[in-house]
Amino acid sequence: MKKTLSAKLMTLVVMLLAQASAFADNEKYFPEVHADGSVTFTIMAPDAKKVEVWGDFAEIKLEKLDMQKDEKGLWSVTSKPLAPEMYSYRFTVDGVETLGRDNAYRVRDGARYKDMVIVSHEKGDKGWLYGVHQVKHGNVSKVWYDSPTLQRTRRMTVYTPAAYDGKRRFPVLYLLHGFGGDENAWSELGRATQILDNLIAEGKAEPMIVVMPNGNPTCDAAPGEWGAGMYQPDGNAFVNNKPRATMEESFMDIVNFVDAHYKTIRKREGRAVTGLSMGGGHTLNISLLYPTTFDYYGLMSAAPKLDNQFVTKGYAEYIHSDKTFGERVARLQASKPRLFWIGIGKEDWLLQTNNDLRHYFDEKGFPYEYYENDGGHLWRNWRIYLTLFAQKIFKP
Amino acid sequence: MKKTLSAKLMTLVVMLLAQASAFADNEKYFPEVHADGSVTFTIMAPDAKKVEVWGDFAEIKLEKLDMQKDEKGLWSVTSKPLAPEMYSYRFTVDGVETLGRDNAYRVRDGARYKDMVIVSHEKGDKGWLYGVHQVKHGNVSKVWYDSPTLQRTRRMTVYTPAAYDGKRRFPVLYLLHGFGGDENAWSELGRATQILDNLIAEGKAEPMIVVMPNGNPTCDAAPGEWGAGMYQPDGNAFVNNKPRATMEESFMDIVNFVDAHYKTIRKREGRAVTGLSMGGGHTLNISLLYPTTFDYYGLMSAAPKLDNQFVTKGYAEYIHSDKTFGERVARLQASKPRLFWIGIGKEDWLLQTNNDLRHYFDEKGFPYEYYENDGGHLWRNWRIYLTLFAQKIFKP
Repeated sequence: MKKTLSAKLMTLVVMLLAQASAFADNEKYFPEVHADGSVTFTIMAPDAKKVEVWGDFAEIKLEKLDMQKDEKGLWSVTSKPLAPEMYSYRFTVDGVETLGRDNAYRVRDGARYKDMVIVSHEKGDKGWLYGVHQVKHGNVSKVWYDSPTLQRTRRMTVYTPAAYDGKRRFPVLYLLHGFGGDENAWSELGRATQILDNLIAEGKAEPMIVVMPNGNPTCDAAPGEWGAGMYQPDGNAFVNNKPRATMEESFMDIVNFVDAHYKTIRKREGRAVTGLSMGGGHTLNISLLYPTTFDYYGLMSAAPKLDNQFVTKGYAEYIHSDKTFGERVARLQASKPRLFWIGIGKEDWLLQTNNDLRHYFDEKGFPYEYYENDGGHLWRNWRIYLTLFAQKIFKP
Repeated sequence: MKKTLSAKLMTLVVMLLAQASAFADNEKYFPEVHADGSVTFTIMAPDAKKVEVWGDFAEIKLEKLDMQKDEKGLWSVTSKPLAPEMYSYRFTVDGVETLGRDNAYRVRDGARYKDMVIVSHEKGDKGWLYGVHQVKHGNVSKVWYDSPTLQRTRRMTVYTPAAYDGKRRFPVLYLLHGFGGDENAWSELGRATQILDNLIAEGKAEPMIVVMPNGNPTCDAAPGEWGAGMYQPDGNAFVNNKPRATMEESFMDIVNFVDAHYKTIRKREGRAVTGLSMGGGHTLNISLLYPTTFDYYGLMSAAPKLDNQFVTKGYAEYIHSDKTFGERVARLQASKPRLFWIGIGKEDWLLQTNNDLRHYFDEKGFPYEYYENDGGHLWRNWRIYLTLFAQKIFKP
């Protein structure tokens, strides 16, 4: 019997799938996003007694949804309608945390992976900004550079906008991760590539290069991506080893490399720096160390002092009494940066520390922009802050 | 009471970990590789009745290891001593497939993720080649290019060797994925970056650019990385949609882009092409369509005919009877490529088809190198073939 071409192809498909086992058995396993923003989560577990899905569906903490089993053993639950957002979740099957079998979209946060799903209601909303659309895309590179200060060869992530052609010069945003993160954090968890692609395509942000370095000066790169091999990430790399210099002290190695290897605007008005948590602390220190190198600064849920006394208590006393700090703030103020931006959530555990910093700036008459929103010390907020900050910088 | 610096830092660490929940509770969760190559897998599941770990520990098929529970509910099993290799595995907890909670090393194969662990006994062995070591690293970029033939803007992965400085010219290896794969397959599942970094560092392969394009001409990029959004990968994208042109017909768009944007050796002796399965078929067709463009060809477990009749049956008759095929092979033969390499496993379901092709070449006196090893149609073999092929090309 002569098979049709499509029947033959189907035979091949079946054979290949049997070989590879790489594809989904059933489309329904994938989280299904409904028109109202509710999401149906499903997982096959015929023998399980209790299945839940935990996700960051609430503003501040993880939320648990109990799932129901059907006669085939497929557990499912549909969430309430969710606002536009990128959500992450994990299943718990009889107490064991597990990822869905067939969600191809997954992100690493430190040592842990989470499944992710994006809810978007309309073009331009947060979910849309974090998605991949039919727009011109920038390139993303993992780039090794020499750091003379740290005496290491280290890795950074570099986004070049779609318009980057090796001729025209572009401004550079230096985008810093937090404690336990690495040079992959902003491009993966942070959706920085998508946010920039979409904002630039919409004409809301200027085309810019975005440099996402590794902020742990005792590491060369993300776990498993450098000579230390495939170790268990524990976030303590920079605590347990004394680096040759701090992130901030070695920061000009990064700027110099980028200026030497990319078509950049090599002036203050072509440079911005922002970071989250520990990276917000790095940003503050960078503003104080190199007051005329950057014109735009962004502190996102910043941990403004990184050595000692940097939890809430004692920070106000420190900044009011430390002579060097005062002199450096005065020097930064005199240099008149175009933007000093501070963003933090009402439930962030670093809110008081940031308030202390703002009050100090107020006393000194140092101008800054302040943005406060709901929520805590979470990626959800850092993506919002990147979206806002990116629209404020490099405007003609 | 005045805390020491390190006690203060520990307080911070605990607070940050509580916030982020991103790190491992217990180092033992990570697979532990012992000196003899055996691996201990552990997973906490106090309420589970049956826990197994499935992995590609055997040459051909998945192997299952039954796990034992201790009094705390931690299940574990130690494998037999394993040969140097990158292994992938998943747990099954009461019948539900799950990934380990705390393995940070994970790869996507189509729609599915697998945990991975590398076993290496000594420097230079397979496991070592697939690991990340203290050697000079090449950069890896996700690059968008215009394909005039397909009328699409598409994405490729580009590896530039550590010595790439924008001045010296390098040869280019075009490295093609199989059915269901995409431009991320070779750099993730295939460990191409590590293999090339390590072979080059050892002086076993010449420094070269490696271009890993997307071989599905109805897609722009990997699932979730282009305008189609975050869809469920099913491997059928190229089957269900008719492309404007085939991969092979549009292939010179890729070569032209690479030659225009990188410092390449723009001659036949500076170009090699190889691919696995469907990509092996692409490679054969590229050799027949552009017989003087490339000097080195590699067929890895090749599916040598991609439209119809390309399963084992009927292939010998086709190549012996198709006039165009015969003419093109004769033209390729007359052009005298430096290397035509064929590699396949004894248990590969495409072995007969490859034998048919080899017998045809033998009849015509077309010289090729042949490598046959154990195992089937699996990434384990394709990594071996890349390792071998990369050492045979571009030698002075």
